[in-house]
Amino acid sequence: MIQMPPTSVACCQITLAVGDPDANRAAGLRAVERAAAAGARVVVLPELANSGYVFRDPAEAAELAEPLDGPTVEGWAACARRNGLIMVGGLCERDEDGLVRNSAVLVDESGVRAVYRKAHLWDREKTVFTPGDELPPVIETPVGRIGALVCYDLEFPEWVRTVALRGADLLCVPTNWPLSPRPEGERPAEVVRAQASAAVNRMFVAACDRTGPERGVAWVGGSVITDADGFPLAGPRPRYDEGLLIAECRLGDARNKRISEHNDVHADRRPELYRSIV
Amino acid sequence: MIQMPPTSVACCQITLAVGDPDANRAAGLRAVERAAAAGARVVVLPELANSGYVFRDPAEAAELAEPLDGPTVEGWAACARRNGLIMVGGLCERDEDGLVRNSAVLVDESGVRAVYRKAHLWDREKTVFTPGDELPPVIETPVGRIGALVCYDLEFPEWVRTVALRGADLLCVPTNWPLSPRPEGERPAEVVRAQASAAVNRMFVAACDRTGPERGVAWVGGSVITDADGFPLAGPRPRYDEGLLIAECRLGDARNKRISEHNDVHADRRPELYRSIV
Repeated sequence: MIQMPPTSVACCQITLAVGDPDANRAAGLRAVERAAAAGARVVVLPELANSGYVFRDPAEAAELAEPLDGPTVEGWAACARRNGLIMVGGLCERDEDGLVRNSAVLVDESGVRAVYRKAHLWDREKTVFTPGDELPPVIETPVGRIGALVCYDLEFPEWVRTVALRGADLLCVPTNWPLSPRPEGERPAEVVRAQASAAVNRMFVAACDRTGPERGVAWVGGSVITDADGFPLAGPRPRYDEGLLIAECRLGDARNKRISEHNDVHADRRPELYRSIV
Repeated sequence: MIQMPPTSVACCQITLAVGDPDANRAAGLRAVERAAAAGARVVVLPELANSGYVFRDPAEAAELAEPLDGPTVEGWAACARRNGLIMVGGLCERDEDGLVRNSAVLVDESGVRAVYRKAHLWDREKTVFTPGDELPPVIETPVGRIGALVCYDLEFPEWVRTVALRGADLLCVPTNWPLSPRPEGERPAEVVRAQASAAVNRMFVAACDRTGPERGVAWVGGSVITDADGFPLAGPRPRYDEGLLIAECRLGDARNKRISEHNDVHADRRPELYRSIV
Protein backbone atom coordinates (compact mmCIF):
# COMPACT_ATOMS: atom_id res chain seq x y z
CA MET A 1 0.00 0.00 0.00
CA ILE A 2 2.71 2.44 1.02
CA GLN A 3 4.29 1.86 -2.37
CA MET A 4 1.06 2.53 -4.29
CA PRO A 5 1.04 5.29 -6.89
CA PRO A 6 -0.59 8.59 -5.91
CA THR A 7 -4.34 8.94 -6.20
CA SER A 8 -5.84 11.98 -7.84
CA VAL A 9 -8.41 13.47 -5.43
CA ALA A 10 -10.75 16.30 -6.40
CA CYS A 11 -13.13 18.70 -4.70
CA CYS A 12 -15.80 20.31 -6.87
CA GLN A 13 -16.52 23.67 -5.26
CA ILE A 14 -19.73 24.45 -7.12
CA THR A 15 -22.58 26.93 -6.94
CA LEU A 16 -25.82 25.51 -5.61
CA ALA A 17 -29.28 27.06 -5.50
CA VAL A 18 -31.73 26.10 -2.80
CA GLY A 19 -34.89 24.58 -4.20
CA ASP A 20 -33.54 23.84 -7.68
CA PRO A 21 -32.49 20.18 -7.48
CA ASP A 22 -32.37 19.69 -11.25
CA ALA A 23 -29.89 22.51 -11.68
CA ASN A 24 -27.91 21.35 -8.66
CA ARG A 25 -27.71 17.79 -9.91
CA ALA A 26 -26.62 18.97 -13.33
CA ALA A 27 -23.99 21.31 -11.87
CA GLY A 28 -22.65 18.50 -9.71
CA LEU A 29 -22.41 16.00 -12.54
CA ARG A 30 -20.80 18.53 -14.88
CA ALA A 31 -18.17 19.25 -12.24
CA VAL A 32 -17.51 15.58 -11.55
CA GLU A 33 -17.13 14.88 -15.27
CA ARG A 34 -14.60 17.70 -15.45
CA ALA A 35 -12.72 16.23 -12.49
CA ALA A 36 -12.79 12.79 -14.11
CA ALA A 37 -11.43 14.25 -17.34
CA ALA A 38 -8.60 15.74 -15.30
CA GLY A 39 -7.81 12.27 -13.97
CA ALA A 40 -9.57 12.26 -10.60
CA ARG A 41 -10.20 8.87 -9.01
CA VAL A 42 -11.94 10.25 -5.89
CA VAL A 43 -14.29 13.22 -6.20
CA VAL A 44 -16.01 15.12 -3.41
CA LEU A 45 -19.11 17.32 -3.79
CA PRO A 46 -20.44 19.80 -1.23
CA GLU A 47 -22.95 19.18 1.54
CA LEU A 48 -26.63 19.04 0.49
CA ALA A 49 -25.55 19.03 -3.13
CA ASN A 50 -29.06 18.19 -4.34
CA SER A 51 -31.15 20.63 -2.33
CA GLY A 52 -29.07 23.67 -1.51
CA TYR A 53 -28.82 24.83 2.08
CA VAL A 54 -30.77 27.85 3.25
CA PHE A 55 -34.22 26.31 3.60
CA ARG A 56 -37.12 28.62 4.33
CA ASP A 57 -38.44 26.08 6.83
CA PRO A 58 -38.30 22.36 7.64
CA ALA A 59 -41.09 21.68 5.16
CA GLU A 60 -39.00 22.97 2.27
CA ALA A 61 -36.17 20.61 3.22
CA ALA A 62 -38.58 17.70 3.57
CA GLU A 63 -39.93 18.41 0.11
CA LEU A 64 -36.44 18.42 -1.40
CA ALA A 65 -35.26 15.30 0.44
CA GLU A 66 -34.64 12.23 -1.73
CA PRO A 67 -34.19 8.57 -0.98
CA LEU A 68 -30.95 6.76 -1.78
CA ASP A 69 -32.54 5.39 -4.93
CA GLY A 70 -33.64 8.85 -6.06
CA PRO A 71 -32.32 10.73 -9.08
CA THR A 72 -29.33 12.36 -7.38
CA VAL A 73 -27.64 9.23 -6.08
CA GLU A 74 -28.61 7.30 -9.23
CA GLY A 75 -26.91 10.02 -11.26
CA TRP A 76 -23.83 9.84 -9.08
CA ALA A 77 -23.65 6.05 -9.31
CA ALA A 78 -23.96 6.17 -13.10
CA CYS A 79 -21.26 8.82 -13.24
CA ALA A 80 -19.00 6.77 -10.96
CA ARG A 81 -19.54 3.71 -13.18
CA ARG A 82 -18.96 5.64 -16.39
CA ASN A 83 -15.73 7.14 -15.14
CA GLY A 84 -14.45 4.39 -12.87
CA LEU A 85 -14.28 6.65 -9.86
CA ILE A 86 -15.37 7.03 -6.25
CA MET A 87 -17.66 9.89 -5.26
CA VAL A 88 -18.61 11.34 -1.92
CA GLY A 89 -21.46 13.84 -2.06
CA GLY A 90 -23.79 15.54 0.38
CA LEU A 91 -27.44 14.60 0.10
CA CYS A 92 -30.62 16.02 1.59
CA GLU A 93 -31.95 12.53 2.24
CA ARG A 94 -35.27 11.01 3.12
CA ASP A 95 -34.29 7.83 4.93
CA GLU A 96 -36.06 4.48 5.02
CA ASP A 97 -38.17 5.69 7.97
CA GLY A 98 -39.14 8.91 6.25
CA LEU A 99 -36.81 11.04 8.38
CA VAL A 100 -34.95 13.92 6.78
CA ARG A 101 -31.19 13.56 7.05
CA ASN A 102 -28.13 15.60 6.18
CA SER A 103 -26.14 12.76 4.65
CA ALA A 104 -22.93 11.96 2.87
CA VAL A 105 -23.16 9.19 0.32
CA LEU A 106 -20.19 7.25 -0.99
CA VAL A 107 -20.67 5.62 -4.37
CA ASP A 108 -18.34 3.71 -6.64
CA GLU A 109 -18.73 1.65 -9.79
CA SER A 110 -20.76 -0.89 -7.85
CA GLY A 111 -23.26 1.71 -6.60
CA VAL A 112 -23.85 2.98 -3.05
CA ARG A 113 -21.09 1.81 -0.73
CA ALA A 114 -22.03 3.83 2.36
CA VAL A 115 -24.39 6.45 3.66
CA TYR A 116 -23.53 8.55 6.67
CA ARG A 117 -26.00 10.79 8.52
CA LYS A 118 -24.47 13.94 10.01
CA ALA A 119 -24.26 13.54 13.77
CA HIS A 120 -23.45 17.15 14.71
CA LEU A 121 -26.00 19.54 13.27
CA TRP A 122 -25.27 23.18 12.61
CA ASP A 123 -27.59 25.93 13.80
CA ARG A 124 -31.05 25.74 12.19
CA GLU A 125 -30.24 22.28 10.84
CA LYS A 126 -31.35 21.19 14.30
CA THR A 127 -34.88 22.19 13.38
CA VAL A 128 -34.70 20.49 9.97
CA PHE A 129 -32.76 17.22 10.18
CA THR A 130 -32.70 14.18 12.41
CA PRO A 131 -29.09 13.70 13.55
CA GLY A 132 -27.34 10.40 12.87
CA ASP A 133 -26.38 8.04 15.69
CA GLU A 134 -24.03 5.76 13.79
CA LEU A 135 -20.28 5.83 13.46
CA PRO A 136 -19.01 7.35 10.22
CA PRO A 137 -18.14 4.87 7.47
CA VAL A 138 -14.60 3.79 6.61
CA ILE A 139 -14.74 2.00 3.27
CA GLU A 140 -12.09 -0.17 1.67
CA THR A 141 -11.55 0.84 -1.98
CA PRO A 142 -8.90 0.06 -4.57
CA VAL A 143 -7.17 3.38 -3.83
CA GLY A 144 -7.26 3.08 -0.05
CA ARG A 145 -9.67 3.39 2.86
CA ILE A 146 -12.05 6.32 2.65
CA GLY A 147 -14.05 7.89 5.46
CA ALA A 148 -16.76 10.53 5.36
CA LEU A 149 -18.11 13.23 7.66
CA VAL A 150 -20.24 16.29 6.99
CA CYS A 151 -19.22 19.89 7.70
CA TYR A 152 -19.64 20.72 11.43
CA ASP A 153 -18.76 17.10 12.31
CA LEU A 154 -15.18 18.05 11.52
CA GLU A 155 -15.09 20.39 14.54
CA PHE A 156 -15.28 17.44 16.92
CA PRO A 157 -11.84 15.88 17.09
CA GLU A 158 -13.26 12.84 18.87
CA TRP A 159 -15.48 12.19 15.87
CA VAL A 160 -12.60 12.58 13.46
CA ARG A 161 -10.67 10.09 15.59
CA THR A 162 -13.41 7.49 15.13
CA VAL A 163 -12.66 7.63 11.41
CA ALA A 164 -8.89 7.78 11.72
CA LEU A 165 -8.58 5.03 14.32
CA ARG A 166 -10.52 2.69 12.07
CA GLY A 167 -7.87 3.17 9.44
CA ALA A 168 -9.10 5.82 7.01
CA ASP A 169 -6.39 7.07 4.66
CA LEU A 170 -8.57 9.86 3.29
CA LEU A 171 -11.41 11.66 5.01
CA CYS A 172 -13.90 13.23 2.59
CA VAL A 173 -16.02 16.05 4.00
CA PRO A 174 -18.86 17.60 2.03
CA THR A 175 -19.37 21.04 3.60
CA ASN A 176 -21.32 24.26 3.34
CA TRP A 177 -19.24 26.65 5.40
CA PRO A 178 -21.14 29.89 5.99
CA LEU A 179 -18.84 32.88 5.69
CA SER A 180 -18.00 34.65 8.94
CA PRO A 181 -15.59 37.50 9.65
CA ARG A 182 -11.92 36.74 10.23
CA PRO A 183 -8.85 38.86 10.81
CA GLU A 184 -7.14 40.21 7.70
CA GLY A 185 -4.66 37.74 6.26
CA GLU A 186 -5.93 34.80 8.29
CA ARG A 187 -6.90 31.52 6.67
CA PRO A 188 -10.51 30.53 7.42
CA ALA A 189 -10.84 28.81 10.80
CA GLU A 190 -12.65 25.93 9.09
CA VAL A 191 -9.58 25.27 6.95
CA VAL A 192 -7.27 25.49 9.96
CA ARG A 193 -9.36 22.89 11.75
CA ALA A 194 -9.31 20.61 8.70
CA GLN A 195 -5.52 20.90 8.60
CA ALA A 196 -5.20 20.07 12.28
CA SER A 197 -7.58 17.10 11.92
CA ALA A 198 -5.35 15.73 9.20
CA ALA A 199 -2.10 16.36 11.05
CA VAL A 200 -2.99 14.83 14.41
CA ASN A 201 -4.10 11.67 12.63
CA ARG A 202 -1.72 11.57 9.67
CA MET A 203 -4.73 11.22 7.40
CA PHE A 204 -5.52 13.04 4.17
CA VAL A 205 -8.55 15.35 4.31
CA ALA A 206 -10.58 16.55 1.32
CA ALA A 207 -13.18 19.10 2.39
CA CYS A 208 -15.43 20.34 -0.40
CA ASP A 209 -17.18 23.64 0.22
CA ARG A 210 -19.72 25.40 -2.01
CA THR A 211 -20.25 28.84 -3.51
CA GLY A 212 -23.26 30.87 -4.66
CA PRO A 213 -24.79 33.22 -2.08
CA GLU A 214 -28.19 31.93 -1.01
CA ARG A 215 -30.94 33.88 0.73
CA GLY A 216 -28.42 36.25 2.29
CA VAL A 217 -25.84 33.59 3.23
CA ALA A 218 -22.39 33.62 1.64
CA TRP A 219 -19.86 30.81 1.91
CA VAL A 220 -16.21 30.55 2.81
CA GLY A 221 -15.39 28.87 -0.51
CA GLY A 222 -12.61 27.24 1.47
CA SER A 223 -12.35 23.79 -0.09
CA VAL A 224 -9.04 22.19 0.72
CA ILE A 225 -7.21 18.93 0.13
CA THR A 226 -4.49 18.33 2.72
CA ASP A 227 -1.71 15.82 2.94
CA ALA A 228 -1.15 13.58 5.95
CA ASP A 229 0.84 16.37 7.64
CA GLY A 230 -2.11 18.73 7.32
CA PHE A 231 -0.53 20.96 4.69
CA PRO A 232 -2.74 21.94 1.76
CA LEU A 233 -2.01 20.16 -1.52
CA ALA A 234 -4.79 22.13 -3.22
CA GLY A 235 -6.77 25.13 -1.99
CA PRO A 236 -7.88 27.00 -0.11
CA ARG A 237 -8.43 29.54 -2.86
CA PRO A 238 -7.57 33.14 -2.09
CA ARG A 239 -11.16 34.15 -2.67
CA TYR A 240 -14.64 32.78 -2.72
CA ASP A 241 -15.30 31.35 -6.18
CA GLU A 242 -16.37 28.29 -8.09
CA GLY A 243 -13.77 25.81 -9.21
CA LEU A 244 -12.12 22.45 -9.24
CA LEU A 245 -9.40 21.49 -6.77
CA ILE A 246 -7.32 18.48 -7.66
CA ALA A 247 -4.30 16.99 -5.93
CA GLU A 248 -2.12 13.92 -6.24
CA CYS A 249 -2.35 12.20 -2.86
CA ARG A 250 0.07 9.50 -1.78
CA LEU A 251 -2.61 7.91 0.38
CA GLY A 252 -0.17 5.24 1.51
CA ASP A 253 1.50 7.94 3.62
CA ALA A 254 -1.50 7.70 5.94
CA ARG A 255 -0.56 4.12 6.78
CA ASN A 256 2.56 5.37 8.47
CA LYS A 257 1.65 7.11 11.71
CA ARG A 258 5.24 7.57 12.81
CA ILE A 259 6.44 11.15 13.19
CA SER A 260 9.77 10.56 14.91
CA GLU A 261 11.95 7.66 15.89
CA HIS A 262 9.87 7.13 19.04
CA ASN A 263 6.49 8.59 18.11
CA ASP A 264 3.35 7.36 16.41
CA VAL A 265 0.37 9.71 16.46
CA HIS A 266 -2.09 6.95 17.26
CA ALA A 267 0.01 4.63 19.40
CA ASP A 268 1.01 7.61 21.57
CA ARG A 269 -2.60 8.22 22.58
CA ARG A 270 -3.39 7.42 26.20
CA PRO A 271 -7.08 6.49 26.09
CA GLU A 272 -7.06 5.21 29.66
CA LEU A 273 -6.42 8.80 30.75
CA TYR A 274 -9.01 10.31 28.41
CA ARG A 275 -11.88 8.08 29.43
CA SER A 276 -12.46 9.70 32.77
CA ILE A 277 -13.51 12.89 31.10
CA VAL A 278 -14.36 12.28 27.45
CA MET B 1 -16.70 37.22 34.47
CA ILE B 2 -17.75 37.86 30.90
CA GLN B 3 -17.66 41.57 31.71
CA MET B 4 -14.14 41.42 33.20
CA PRO B 5 -11.45 43.67 31.71
CA PRO B 6 -8.94 42.04 29.37
CA THR B 7 -5.95 40.23 30.83
CA SER B 8 -2.51 40.84 29.47
CA VAL B 9 -0.95 37.47 28.63
CA ALA B 10 2.69 37.06 27.60
CA CYS B 11 4.91 34.38 26.13
CA CYS B 12 8.66 34.78 26.64
CA GLN B 13 10.28 33.11 23.66
CA ILE B 14 13.82 32.94 25.01
CA THR B 15 17.11 31.29 24.16
CA LEU B 16 18.04 28.36 26.38
CA ALA B 17 21.28 26.42 26.59
CA VAL B 18 21.28 22.81 27.66
CA GLY B 19 23.33 22.22 30.77
CA ASP B 20 23.53 25.86 31.87
CA PRO B 21 20.70 26.19 34.40
CA ASP B 22 22.04 29.40 35.94
CA ALA B 23 22.01 31.17 32.59
CA ASN B 24 18.62 29.68 31.74
CA ARG B 25 17.10 30.78 35.05
CA ALA B 26 18.50 34.27 34.61
CA ALA B 27 17.24 34.52 31.01
CA GLY B 28 13.79 33.38 32.11
CA LEU B 29 13.55 35.83 34.97
CA ARG B 30 14.82 38.73 32.85
CA ALA B 31 12.17 37.97 30.26
CA VAL B 32 9.39 37.67 32.83
CA GLU B 33 10.40 40.99 34.40
CA ARG B 34 10.23 42.57 30.95
CA ALA B 35 6.77 41.08 30.44
CA ALA B 36 5.68 42.33 33.85
CA ALA B 37 6.94 45.80 33.03
CA ALA B 38 4.83 45.68 29.88
CA GLY B 39 1.79 44.92 32.02
CA ALA B 40 1.52 41.14 31.76
CA ARG B 41 -0.57 39.38 34.40
CA VAL B 42 0.01 35.85 33.05
CA VAL B 43 3.44 34.90 31.71
CA VAL B 44 4.43 31.65 30.02
CA LEU B 45 7.99 30.33 29.69
CA PRO B 46 9.14 27.51 27.39
CA GLU B 47 9.35 23.80 28.18
CA LEU B 48 12.35 22.67 30.27
CA ALA B 49 13.21 26.31 30.93
CA ASN B 50 15.78 25.39 33.58
CA SER B 51 17.69 22.62 31.83
CA GLY B 52 17.49 23.11 28.09
CA TYR B 53 16.32 20.27 25.91
CA VAL B 54 18.85 18.30 23.88
CA PHE B 55 20.29 16.08 26.60
CA ARG B 56 23.27 13.93 25.72
CA ASP B 57 21.72 11.08 27.68
CA PRO B 58 19.22 10.38 30.49
CA ALA B 59 21.96 10.93 33.07
CA GLU B 60 22.47 14.52 31.95
CA ALA B 61 18.76 15.22 32.38
CA ALA B 62 18.72 13.54 35.78
CA GLU B 63 21.62 15.72 36.87
CA LEU B 64 19.83 18.90 35.76
CA ALA B 65 16.46 17.94 37.27
CA GLU B 66 15.32 20.03 40.24
CA PRO B 67 12.68 19.56 42.90
CA LEU B 68 9.74 21.97 43.19
CA ASP B 69 11.54 23.73 46.03
CA GLY B 70 14.70 24.14 43.98
CA PRO B 71 16.15 27.43 42.76
CA THR B 72 14.15 27.67 39.53
CA VAL B 73 10.67 27.44 41.00
CA GLU B 74 11.72 29.50 44.02
CA GLY B 75 12.90 32.19 41.62
CA TRP B 76 9.64 32.04 39.71
CA ALA B 77 7.56 32.26 42.88
CA ALA B 78 9.53 35.27 44.09
CA CYS B 79 9.12 36.91 40.71
CA ALA B 80 5.38 36.19 40.71
CA ARG B 81 5.08 37.67 44.20
CA ARG B 82 7.17 40.72 43.32
CA ASN B 83 5.13 41.48 40.24
CA GLY B 84 1.71 40.21 41.26
CA LEU B 85 1.48 37.83 38.35
CA ILE B 86 0.85 34.23 37.40
CA MET B 87 3.59 32.22 35.72
CA VAL B 88 3.56 28.91 33.88
CA GLY B 89 6.98 27.52 33.10
CA GLY B 90 8.47 24.25 31.96
CA LEU B 91 10.69 22.46 34.48
CA CYS B 92 13.04 19.53 34.25
CA GLU B 93 11.80 18.17 37.57
CA ARG B 94 12.94 15.59 40.05
CA ASP B 95 9.70 14.55 41.71
CA GLU B 96 9.09 13.43 45.29
CA ASP B 97 9.92 9.83 44.29
CA GLY B 98 13.14 10.80 42.55
CA LEU B 99 11.67 10.35 39.05
CA VAL B 100 12.66 12.76 36.32
CA ARG B 101 9.66 14.58 34.85
CA ASN B 102 9.01 17.01 32.06
CA SER B 103 6.73 19.31 34.02
CA ALA B 104 4.81 22.56 33.81
CA VAL B 105 4.60 24.51 37.02
CA LEU B 106 2.02 27.18 37.73
CA VAL B 107 3.00 29.73 40.37
CA ASP B 108 1.32 32.87 41.64
CA GLU B 109 1.89 35.26 44.52
CA SER B 110 1.08 32.45 46.96
CA GLY B 111 3.70 30.09 45.51
CA VAL B 112 3.23 26.83 43.60
CA ARG B 113 -0.40 26.36 42.63
CA ALA B 114 -0.04 23.31 40.37
CA VAL B 115 2.49 20.97 38.85
CA TYR B 116 1.68 18.97 35.75
CA ARG B 117 3.82 16.12 34.41
CA LYS B 118 3.79 15.77 30.63
CA ALA B 119 1.74 12.72 29.69
CA HIS B 120 2.70 12.46 26.00
CA LEU B 121 6.45 12.31 25.59
CA TRP B 122 8.22 13.35 22.42
CA ASP B 123 10.83 11.14 20.78
CA ARG B 124 13.91 10.59 22.97
CA GLU B 125 12.07 12.10 25.94
CA LYS B 126 10.69 8.57 26.29
CA THR B 127 14.17 7.44 27.30
CA VAL B 128 14.62 10.36 29.71
CA PHE B 129 11.38 11.18 31.52
CA THR B 130 8.67 9.28 33.34
CA PRO B 131 5.34 10.28 31.78
CA GLY B 132 2.61 11.73 33.98
CA ASP B 133 -0.61 9.84 34.66
CA GLU B 134 -2.67 12.67 36.10
CA LEU B 135 -5.16 14.99 34.45
CA PRO B 136 -3.78 18.42 33.64
CA PRO B 137 -4.52 21.15 36.17
CA VAL B 138 -7.21 23.79 35.76
CA ILE B 139 -6.60 26.48 38.38
CA GLU B 140 -8.95 29.23 39.52
CA THR B 141 -7.16 32.60 39.54
CA PRO B 142 -8.29 36.21 39.82
CA VAL B 143 -8.04 36.60 36.03
CA GLY B 144 -9.82 33.35 35.13
CA ARG B 145 -9.26 29.61 35.06
CA ILE B 146 -5.88 28.56 33.73
CA GLY B 147 -4.88 25.13 32.44
CA ALA B 148 -1.47 23.80 31.47
CA LEU B 149 -0.07 21.19 29.10
CA VAL B 150 3.42 20.65 27.69
CA CYS B 151 4.33 20.69 23.99
CA TYR B 152 3.41 17.36 22.33
CA ASP B 153 0.41 17.01 24.69
CA LEU B 154 -1.25 19.65 22.54
CA GLU B 155 -1.38 17.23 19.60
CA PHE B 156 -3.92 15.05 21.41
CA PRO B 157 -7.29 16.76 21.12
CA GLU B 158 -8.74 14.43 23.76
CA TRP B 159 -6.17 15.72 26.24
CA VAL B 160 -6.93 19.32 25.36
CA ARG B 161 -10.61 18.53 25.93
CA THR B 162 -9.87 17.38 29.47
CA VAL B 163 -8.66 20.90 30.18
CA ALA B 164 -11.39 22.70 28.27
CA LEU B 165 -14.28 20.64 29.64
CA ARG B 166 -13.16 21.40 33.17
CA GLY B 167 -13.60 25.09 32.39
CA ALA B 168 -10.21 26.50 31.48
CA ASP B 169 -10.38 29.97 29.95
CA LEU B 170 -6.71 29.99 29.01
CA LEU B 171 -4.49 27.03 28.24
CA CYS B 172 -0.78 27.74 28.78
CA VAL B 173 1.63 25.47 26.94
CA PRO B 174 5.37 25.59 27.53
CA THR B 175 6.89 24.08 24.39
CA ASN B 176 10.15 23.28 22.64
CA TRP B 177 9.06 22.76 19.05
CA PRO B 178 11.91 21.28 17.00
CA LEU B 179 12.04 22.85 13.56
CA SER B 180 10.95 20.62 10.69
CA PRO B 181 10.47 21.39 7.01
CA ARG B 182 7.21 22.90 5.81
CA PRO B 183 5.94 24.12 2.48
CA GLU B 184 6.83 27.69 1.54
CA GLY B 185 4.38 30.20 2.96
CA GLU B 186 2.77 27.75 5.37
CA ARG B 187 2.40 28.50 9.05
CA PRO B 188 4.09 25.89 11.27
CA ALA B 189 1.87 22.85 11.80
CA GLU B 190 2.35 23.24 15.56
CA VAL B 191 0.77 26.68 15.41
CA VAL B 192 -2.10 25.44 13.24
CA ARG B 193 -2.84 22.74 15.80
CA ALA B 194 -2.74 25.28 18.65
CA GLN B 195 -5.22 27.43 16.73
CA ALA B 196 -7.56 24.50 16.14
CA SER B 197 -7.33 23.44 19.80
CA ALA B 198 -8.45 26.91 20.81
CA ALA B 199 -11.23 27.15 18.25
CA VAL B 200 -12.94 23.82 18.88
CA ASN B 201 -13.09 24.63 22.59
CA ARG B 202 -13.50 28.40 22.52
CA MET B 203 -10.54 28.67 24.87
CA PHE B 204 -7.53 30.98 24.69
CA VAL B 205 -4.19 29.27 24.09
CA ALA B 206 -0.77 30.68 24.92
CA ALA B 207 1.99 28.42 23.60
CA CYS B 208 5.51 29.54 24.44
CA ASP B 209 8.28 28.15 22.28
CA ARG B 210 12.04 28.67 22.64
CA THR B 211 14.96 29.71 20.45
CA GLY B 212 18.71 29.07 20.44
CA PRO B 213 19.94 26.14 18.36
CA GLU B 214 21.16 23.35 20.63
CA ARG B 215 23.39 20.44 19.67
CA GLY B 216 22.18 20.57 16.09
CA VAL B 217 18.48 21.11 16.86
CA ALA B 218 16.77 24.33 15.79
CA TRP B 219 13.32 25.43 16.94
CA VAL B 220 10.19 26.66 15.25
CA GLY B 221 10.19 29.85 17.31
CA GLY B 222 6.44 29.67 16.81
CA SER B 223 5.08 31.05 20.08
CA VAL B 224 1.49 32.14 19.68
CA ILE B 225 -1.32 33.56 21.77
CA THR B 226 -4.74 32.86 20.27
CA ASP B 227 -8.18 34.16 21.06
CA ALA B 228 -11.13 31.87 21.73
CA ASP B 229 -11.78 31.61 17.98
CA GLY B 230 -8.26 30.32 17.43
CA PHE B 231 -6.98 33.42 15.67
CA PRO B 232 -3.57 34.71 16.75
CA LEU B 233 -3.59 37.81 18.93
CA ALA B 234 0.21 37.76 19.08
CA GLY B 235 2.69 35.72 17.06
CA PRO B 236 3.66 33.58 15.40
CA ARG B 237 6.67 35.63 14.38
CA PRO B 238 7.66 35.50 10.76
CA ARG B 239 11.02 34.05 11.67
CA TYR B 240 12.76 32.18 14.40
CA ASP B 241 14.02 34.71 16.97
CA GLU B 242 13.96 35.64 20.61
CA GLY B 243 11.28 37.97 21.86
CA LEU B 244 8.27 38.83 23.95
CA LEU B 245 4.72 38.20 22.76
CA ILE B 246 2.01 40.03 24.63
CA ALA B 247 -1.72 40.20 24.00
CA GLU B 248 -4.79 41.58 25.69
CA CYS B 249 -7.08 38.59 26.17
CA ARG B 250 -10.76 38.94 27.02
CA LEU B 251 -10.69 35.65 28.89
CA GLY B 252 -14.39 35.98 29.68
CA ASP B 253 -15.04 35.17 26.02
CA ALA B 254 -14.08 31.59 26.84
CA ARG B 255 -17.08 31.31 29.16
CA ASN B 256 -19.37 31.62 26.18
CA LYS B 257 -19.22 28.44 24.11
CA ARG B 258 -22.00 29.48 21.77
CA ILE B 259 -21.08 29.89 18.13
CA SER B 260 -24.53 30.25 16.59
CA GLU B 261 -28.09 30.56 17.75
CA HIS B 262 -28.32 26.78 18.15
CA ASN B 263 -24.70 25.73 18.71
CA ASP B 264 -22.39 25.43 21.68
CA VAL B 265 -19.01 23.81 21.03
CA HIS B 266 -19.13 21.77 24.20
CA ALA B 267 -22.85 21.05 24.53
CA ASP B 268 -22.89 19.84 20.91
CA ARG B 269 -20.46 17.04 21.71
CA ARG B 270 -21.95 13.54 21.60
CA PRO B 271 -19.79 11.63 24.06
CA GLU B 272 -22.10 8.61 24.00
CA LEU B 273 -21.08 8.12 20.36
CA TYR B 274 -17.37 8.71 20.99
CA ARG B 275 -17.01 6.23 23.83
CA SER B 276 -17.23 3.14 21.69
CA ILE B 277 -13.99 4.04 20.00
CA VAL B 278 -12.06 6.60 22.06
